[in-house]
Amino acid sequence: MEEVKYLLDIGVILIITKALGIISRKFSLPPVVGALLAGIFLGPVCLNLVQPNDTISALAEIGVIVLMFEAGLETDMKELKRSGFASLIIAVLGVITPLILGYIVAGSMTTEILQRIFVGVILTATSVSITVETLQDMGKLKTSAGTAILGAAIIDDILGILLLSIITSVGESGSTDAISVLGVFGKMIVFFVLALLSGMLVFRFFQYLLKGLNEEHKRRIPVFAFAFCLLSAYVSELFGIADITGAYIAGIVLCNLSQNDYIKTKVEVVSYMLCTPIFFASIGIKTDLSGLTSSAFSFTILICIVAILSKVIGCGLGAKLCHYSNKESLQIGVGMISRGEVALIVANKGIKSGLMDERLFAPMIVMVIVTTLLTPILLKFVFSERMEYRKDKEHAIAHK
Amino acid sequence: MEEVKYLLDIGVILIITKALGIISRKFSLPPVVGALLAGIFLGPVCLNLVQPNDTISALAEIGVIVLMFEAGLETDMKELKRSGFASLIIAVLGVITPLILGYIVAGSMTTEILQRIFVGVILTATSVSITVETLQDMGKLKTSAGTAILGAAIIDDILGILLLSIITSVGESGSTDAISVLGVFGKMIVFFVLALLSGMLVFRFFQYLLKGLNEEHKRRIPVFAFAFCLLSAYVSELFGIADITGAYIAGIVLCNLSQNDYIKTKVEVVSYMLCTPIFFASIGIKTDLSGLTSSAFSFTILICIVAILSKVIGCGLGAKLCHYSNKESLQIGVGMISRGEVALIVANKGIKSGLMDERLFAPMIVMVIVTTLLTPILLKFVFSERMEYRKDKEHAIAHK
Repeated sequence: MEEVKYLLDIGVILIITKALGIISRKFSLPPVVGALLAGIFLGPVCLNLVQPNDTISALAEIGVIVLMFEAGLETDMKELKRSGFASLIIAVLGVITPLILGYIVAGSMTTEILQRIFVGVILTATSVSITVETLQDMGKLKTSAGTAILGAAIIDDILGILLLSIITSVGESGSTDAISVLGVFGKMIVFFVLALLSGMLVFRFFQYLLKGLNEEHKRRIPVFAFAFCLLSAYVSELFGIADITGAYIAGIVLCNLSQNDYIKTKVEVVSYMLCTPIFFASIGIKTDLSGLTSSAFSFTILICIVAILSKVIGCGLGAKLCHYSNKESLQIGVGMISRGEVALIVANKGIKSGLMDERLFAPMIVMVIVTTLLTPILLKFVFSERMEYRKDKEHAIAHK
Repeated sequence: MEEVKYLLDIGVILIITKALGIISRKFSLPPVVGALLAGIFLGPVCLNLVQPNDTISALAEIGVIVLMFEAGLETDMKELKRSGFASLIIAVLGVITPLILGYIVAGSMTTEILQRIFVGVILTATSVSITVETLQDMGKLKTSAGTAILGAAIIDDILGILLLSIITSVGESGSTDAISVLGVFGKMIVFFVLALLSGMLVFRFFQYLLKGLNEEHKRRIPVFAFAFCLLSAYVSELFGIADITGAYIAGIVLCNLSQNDYIKTKVEVVSYMLCTPIFFASIGIKTDLSGLTSSAFSFTILICIVAILSKVIGCGLGAKLCHYSNKESLQIGVGMISRGEVALIVANKGIKSGLMDERLFAPMIVMVIVTTLLTPILLKFVFSERMEYRKDKEHAIAHK
């Protein structure tokens, strides 16, 4: 029976993840929280139903790759050009602040520089899907704060991927002296130049494929796109760069294709029918709360506070520098708090590559849940009419 | 790099399978032939690019399960009731004849009874998708022969699954004396009764799920359906019955659901984007022509002839017994020749369970390719107007 145990594993993972997703929706919680809780529920913390094995971890890895490919495909180049400079400033400050603060706080748990930087890198991640959903519900997505958040999130993703590439490359080379770090940078530059050139070729190839294609033969497009994503992920690893970087780049290469949406819907099906639930479950399986010492516990609280404040301050400051009002700057900062699946993906990579201590994993999971749960609540508050009214009043008083 | 080698494997498999599928379509060949050739191309016979490993074989197994689940979902109960008795007779004779002839011919390669029966079981399989496509192109699908083929193919699938269940159960029990065979039958009856009861429960559960479901939340249905299929496959194995039987039953349980088509389209995406190409590739990887001795070579030719004649004679005889004309009986017999992916799935199971000698595998693959390639050609011939004309003439002469 052991040889087909993965059928049971996958079946149970799909049911529990979907069921908890449905329940979390009932309580107006973000679905990613439901999926994460499902993973923890299935793992050693609760039922211990699913044990790690080669098949499950390969499918989980494909799940992460698919998620990053989707993120790349969703890159809206027009949005990026439109929001432009302001979004860049917001994103840059919103990445630097958590990176530095994360590095400082991680000092309480480890003295290794790379480990400390890695904690910072995890904190730089942003997942705006929750924010977008919340603002859409409130009809506030088209406000100037909403537009700035969308633009900054795209750049945030790109910067995050760059940081991750740098740290995994340096980590893989196993040395932090100046010459080998320079070597790593050289390799990275070669990789990105190659990616740019081959990306242009691949884009043309897809354009050629699309010419005169009828409905019936259309399905070859997502198949080739998915294959390209997997190969791109593999080639990244050859360069000592995380596979998810390759997948994200593959998504960006194809995001301007006319059949972009068609590819996305097909990839999405593979994602939600099979791979993504397994990824969330595998995170849960890795989350072991039994080793949560009191120092780790206080670190968890600290990292949650830092995660929230660093984005509010960093992005808020960036917005303020670009002449957004105080209120808008606060809204933008709050909109970038949620770490969602992006931080999980990065943390997961950290554990796999040995760049992050296992003790730091559980606090990161808690941080993701806390920031993801808090974001919609805080957003409703900072976008509320009452706050609008109070601000107007303050404004009126100040100008009396 | 070894740990992410599967990314390269899957990417290459997807590209080669799809590319050869496109080329075979250009030459008006059935796509399954292209996929199979892709597998052989990737395997030890040609490039030896993909080596078997846990991840690839797990994904291939999920591919088979998905294919059988799709076959179950496509079961058209109305069609079955309509074509009724005639289809039953055609299917039964179309299963018994290849079973017996296969058993006899296999005697030239092996003396083991179970192995010989297994060759017969592989020959009973029918894949009418090629026939359906060809008849549709010719506008002959709605003829009485076309209807009979569709009905008989459904029953053929069910009978094939039953035979496979019996032989894998007996094979697993490791003994062929009367008492243990009876025990195996007892276990099978328990399994099918349990499957019937739980199937009814599951069907109701899905009907409950579907009540008042809006578009946005619809995607939970295919996720649960897929999970049910995987669990059903797992439970079958617990009873010593092949997992594909469980997957097929899961499909039949859900085939009458109002959202059947929606489930099918989503499962199909997982199938063609990931799992099915890997299954075909895994078949190719297992196909080693280097061991093809002269005795195996003559066996290959023999088995191809038997595969064609046994269906033409068996199904043709069944049709004749049900008062179809000579010409229609021939058309029906020819329409059932193609073994397609179904025979591959069964042969694959035989290798995995040790019920089939590895020497017999390559001849079976060749048989699948030959029958699948010949079916559309023969169909065009027996359905041609010229033949119609000749028959009419013969008929006129005979009645002069």
